[in-house]
This record gives sequence, structure tokens and C-alpha cells, in this order.
Amino acid sequence: MVASIINGSSPLSYSNGTTIPLSVFSLNSFVNVEKGDPVAFGPFWEKVKDECMVDIKGEEWMSYFGDTNNLCWYMVPQMRDAILRLHKVVGNAVTKDKFLVLGTGSSQLYQALLYGLSPSEPSHCPINVVAAAPYYSEYKDTTDILQSRLFQWTDNAALYDKDEPYIEVVTSPNNPDGTLRVPVVKSGVEGKIIYDLAYYWPQYTPITYKFDHDVMLFTFSKCTGHAGSRIGWAFVNDIEVAKKMIRFIHLNSIGVSKESQIRAAKMIGVICDGYQNLKSIESDHLFFYYSKRLMKERWETFKGAIEQSKVFSLTKYPISYCHFNKDLSEQYPAFAWLKCVEGIQDGERYLEKLKIRTRGGERFGVDAKYVRVSMIGTDDEFVELCTRLSNAKRE
Amino acid sequence: MVASIINGSSPLSYSNGTTIPLSVFSLNSFVNVEKGDPVAFGPFWEKVKDECMVDIKGEEWMSYFGDTNNLCWYMVPQMRDAILRLHKVVGNAVTKDKFLVLGTGSSQLYQALLYGLSPSEPSHCPINVVAAAPYYSEYKDTTDILQSRLFQWTDNAALYDKDEPYIEVVTSPNNPDGTLRVPVVKSGVEGKIIYDLAYYWPQYTPITYKFDHDVMLFTFSKCTGHAGSRIGWAFVNDIEVAKKMIRFIHLNSIGVSKESQIRAAKMIGVICDGYQNLKSIESDHLFFYYSKRLMKERWETFKGAIEQSKVFSLTKYPISYCHFNKDLSEQYPAFAWLKCVEGIQDGERYLEKLKIRTRGGERFGVDAKYVRVSMIGTDDEFVELCTRLSNAKRE
Repeated sequence: MVASIINGSSPLSYSNGTTIPLSVFSLNSFVNVEKGDPVAFGPFWEKVKDECMVDIKGEEWMSYFGDTNNLCWYMVPQMRDAILRLHKVVGNAVTKDKFLVLGTGSSQLYQALLYGLSPSEPSHCPINVVAAAPYYSEYKDTTDILQSRLFQWTDNAALYDKDEPYIEVVTSPNNPDGTLRVPVVKSGVEGKIIYDLAYYWPQYTPITYKFDHDVMLFTFSKCTGHAGSRIGWAFVNDIEVAKKMIRFIHLNSIGVSKESQIRAAKMIGVICDGYQNLKSIESDHLFFYYSKRLMKERWETFKGAIEQSKVFSLTKYPISYCHFNKDLSEQYPAFAWLKCVEGIQDGERYLEKLKIRTRGGERFGVDAKYVRVSMIGTDDEFVELCTRLSNAKRE
Repeated sequence: MVASIINGSSPLSYSNGTTIPLSVFSLNSFVNVEKGDPVAFGPFWEKVKDECMVDIKGEEWMSYFGDTNNLCWYMVPQMRDAILRLHKVVGNAVTKDKFLVLGTGSSQLYQALLYGLSPSEPSHCPINVVAAAPYYSEYKDTTDILQSRLFQWTDNAALYDKDEPYIEVVTSPNNPDGTLRVPVVKSGVEGKIIYDLAYYWPQYTPITYKFDHDVMLFTFSKCTGHAGSRIGWAFVNDIEVAKKMIRFIHLNSIGVSKESQIRAAKMIGVICDGYQNLKSIESDHLFFYYSKRLMKERWETFKGAIEQSKVFSLTKYPISYCHFNKDLSEQYPAFAWLKCVEGIQDGERYLEKLKIRTRGGERFGVDAKYVRVSMIGTDDEFVELCTRLSNAKRE
């Protein structure tokens, strides 16, 4: 059973001229766009696979240590150099005079930061951790899983009105809704800010500023799509915070996989070579060109499907000048954030009936009318998602 | 400046007939045997490097997921199969009808287990975590770093006398002293036991039993020497504990590096092929044969140096029948545990004067007369360690 059975027709055409081909999902199988597994960029890496091959010999990278001269002793020099080079090429962050801390994905670094930014001794009142809703669905559970006496999740930053120390997490572009964010807490005391910049890459949003914050968090997963590698990094201004983070990562996992570091360094090298040495004269071999075009095409198709469904409305994004691409551009977030029209109370449940698995608004600290949909899954998933969404009005 | 300047002579000879060659350490440089970086087995992996090469293509292993049909969804089937095969070959653990949980090294799994074995809701009294002294120096800090309300470090298991719930960590063979351990707590309430079997491999100790405990922890680092990969695993009987552990690892690092998994699976495959398919007819190409011989030689040399120094005494180990090697054998632990003779109060400080960096007894919950020395560093480090130790009596 193929999608045409659902559609009862040939490939879909939308009013804006985009078309989507048939896919091979069966009528009863779910399209899972609940997770943010970033496999969409796989075909790019397939295209450049000869340049990207990593060979690791049996006796290599056996030690816990990567560079005993670096504060971040488990980071190999190739990894450090690749990260600094990438930010230089993209221009999205100031890296000079900051401490670079590597982590097993940005989840581990988030916890290392909570530890690093909290007072060392527990008090009767743990430091409050807040983020403006809708916020990344895992922050709450990650903060509270061990019921720490050092910090505690205190929910929506927009409602925070205590005169107590706090840490505000500012995710920009935001997960789930793609909006550009600034701190929102208005408190009598000065807070500490974690900027989670997981999605501040040219395929998702115009690069408008070279950010220069005290604490900035990045992840390899959402940059290149290699989520399986579990590589993330933070830039921090304060050496004491960096030291505490490294201590946390030491106790938490004794550093970060060397194999992942070597591979991430290689992948980042291929991206940067494309731009710096013009090794690839085909623009299709330039990663951010390829990935932005893909995101743009998907968003155009997706908007067509949503328009046709008349069941949801979409977040609107501004147009800005991108210093990396040297053009004016809209945003193409990794997730679509849908709001149900009047009369539908629960977006997740509504889409479940259409065999589309999503993550509902309540997980993000807002109401069930909202729902998050991944835009970075496989082509097949994406096509089937649009097909089923465009059928929504007929339900 | 070479070691001969210190010795003032040619290669050392000991009473038991072993000799050690000259090394290239300078007079002023420290020999660092404080950490347990297991690089000693590097020459084996160099020897079999053609079989061990891992190639990873650009588009491979991008997803967060390894096997959506497995409870441990981030573990790739190759990794699971390799772990089960290794235990079948070595015969050190019963794996049937147990849940296999993969972690970013056994440190992460230790924390996942504390979470998994603790009550889900915090009470006024966190569950007590104990281990018999001397215990692994990182347990305390790893347990208490986030000041959890779920569990707390309560120190020496031998002194535990509360009628309150507890978790006892039993490390066997033990780090730091290499002794074989059983639970020691005598309490009115039933405790939960974590068996940390990091060193229960044939190069360190005779394989006397196929362990069949409710919770068993292993690490790739100390088995093959690939500490840089950060791979560990646990076998647990209770599915609810396994689920909580996987939830912890999900929030802590969204799984485990796929690159490390692929490489660890390959290395384990090379070890098992050696024994099962007799691909390597040279016994030098059999990993546990090679690594046990190395440990035995080192221990013999080391005992000679200690005997000559007359400053320290060593732990005595029993001889047992090894079901894997089919012979009677002594233990050759990854660490030597030295006790100062009368008149020396602080072993770490004493060795510091000889430019030997070690980890003192207080870090392991005992007094400063004891000191831990790594036996699994590079050949150069080991040779220089023995040279300097044998000079101790001349100080």
C-alpha cells in the first residue's frame, strides 16, 4: 500500500507551484516526526563520502587524554581546531579569549553548566532554572532528574518574579518554535544566562550577529546532522565555570569519545575546506548551501500542505540579512510549530488520528493546541507528512 | 639525561632474575602512575592493526537511534552482539535473560544505576551508597557531585550500621587493591548491590566463576585498553531498573557515541575471532594471552623493585584455577597497592620526592600509609617507575 491509496491521486501539487512525489508508507504505519533526529542531511554526506571517510587504527586514541596542555584535557587538538575553524568560517560566534569545553552532546554540557553556574555548596534554596515557554521539552527533566540541591527547574522565565538567584536558558533560534530569543526575566537580582545556540547555523536562520555571550552552547548534531556522534561544545568566559564543567564531565563520563572527536573534526574540515579552499566548485558540495536549499524547499512544500489543510496556523518569521550567505533570507527552522485553528483543542491527538506522531505543546510548557513537527527527518517521512497534513481538511 | 644517570649503571637486574632495560626519562621529570590510563596494551593493537582498522563513511551512523527494537534504543546491534560474544568467550558473566544497558563508560552507568536503584520520589532521607574501604577514589565525588536528594555517599561499607535502605558497591577485583570482594554490609534491611566488574578479565585475575548477579557493570577501557572510546555496559535483571537507567542516559547524553560502538564492536570481534575461529595461530595474536603475559612480566619486575627498595610492602594474592586459561594462576591487578613500612607516614609524599606521582590512601577512604600505583601505563613509564622504586632504599 502506497501513499497514492491515501491520496487517491498522483503526486501532490500545491498552489505555490511545489510538488511532492509519491512515497512508500503504508496506510497503517505512523509517520514519526515527534523526535528531532537530523537525518535529512544524509544525502549530502553520501555525495562527499570519499572526502569524509575516517580510518581509525587499532592502537590509536586509546588514552583517556586528548591534550594534557589544554584545560579541557580530554579534547584532541584536531577537535579544538575544527570547532574554532568552523566558527571562523560561519561567523556566528566570537571564540577569542573564551574557554572551549567539549561534551558528549550538548545535553551533557547543559548539566555541566548548571553545575558550573550554581553555588558550590548547597543552600536551603537551590538556584532557579528558567526558560521562556515554549521551551525545549527536555530541559525540565534534565534539570530535575537527580533532584539536586544545587539547582531546580522553576519553569517559565516570562512568569519568574522571585528576587532569588536564577539561571535563564535562552535558546535562539528556539526549539520548538524557531523564534529568535533574548533573555526575558525581570528580577531584582542578576541572573546567569545560558545561550543554547544549537540552531544558530546558516541552514536554519540568517547569521545576523557574531554572538559574544558569557556562555554559549553548540551541538554537532544539529549543525551537520551527525546526532549519533554525541558531540557538543560550549564557549565560556569564566575559567572557574570552565573548570567546574570539566570536573563534571570528568566524573560524568571521563571525557568524550575520541572516535567521535576524530570523525567530527574530519566532517567539519570537509565543510570548511569547501568554503575556504574552494576544493568543491559545485555549490552542491558546499554543506550550508545544500542544507539551506533543502530546508527552504521543505518549508515551501510544508507551507503548501498546511495552507491546504486549513487546520493549523504557522509561526511567522522575519526576513533578515545573512552575513554568511550575503543575502536576505527567511528562517527555515528545524521544527515547525503548529497551532490548531478554533475548535481543535489537542493538536497531538488530532494528528495521531492522521497517523502522524508529534510532540504536543504541554511538553514545551504551553497548551495542547500547539504541536511540534520535525522538519529534518528522512525525505520519505517528510513527503508522507505533507501528504497526510494536506488531507487533514478532508477528515 | 637518561635513567642511567640516576642508576649510575647499566640495566637493572633483580634477585629473581628479571632485568629491566634503560629508559629515556629525564632526572627532573615526573613518572606519572597516578591515573589508570590503560595504554599498556597498545603494542598488541599495533600488532593486529590490519584486522582492526575501522572505516566510517560520511553518511553512516547519523541517527540518535541504534536499534529501535531494543529497550536500549541507542545501542547498535553490532555492539550488543559483540558484548554477548565476548562474555561467551571469556565465561565471566551470565548474560541470558538479563537486560544489557550501554553507557558512555562505566562512570555514566554507575550514576544511571544510582538513579535506577533509588526510589523515584525523593524522601527526607536519600538512599545510602557505601563501599568497603579502600574503595575506588571517584565513587564518592561521582555520587555527591550534584547533591542529589535521591542518594548520598555514606562511606565505608564495613562500618555501615544503619537500618536504612542502602546501595553497596562491590568492586571485584577491587580498585585500588586488587582483592576479590563480596558484600560486607550487615544491616537489618536488605540492600541493593552493584557489582563493578571492571577488572574481571583474564589478564588481571583468574576467571573463577561465571558471575550471575542482579547488577553487573563492565567497561571496555580496562578490558581492551581503549579508554578513549568511553564504552561501558551493565547487565541488570530488573526491567524497571534498566528502563530508568536508559532514561537517565537519554537525558544525560542522548545515548552513546555510535563511532565508539562500531569501533568497540570491531575490537571485540578481533579478540573473539582469535579464540573462536583460531584465525591467529600465533598465541601472541591472542589478546588475553598477550595482555596476561605482559601483566605477569610487569608484576615480576615490580616485585623485584619493591623487594630491593625495602620501603613498601605489597598486597598478597591467592592462586586460583582460571577456567578461561585452564591453569592455576596468581592475580596481576591493574594497580599495585603499596603500604609504607614503619616510619613513613605518607606514601604519596614519599614517592613524590622520588619524582613518582601516585594517588594516596586518603583518596580511597584509608590512611596515607597506602598508595596506589598504575601498572598499565606505557613501557617507558613502567621501567622508570621500577628504576626509581628500586632506588628508594638509597634515599
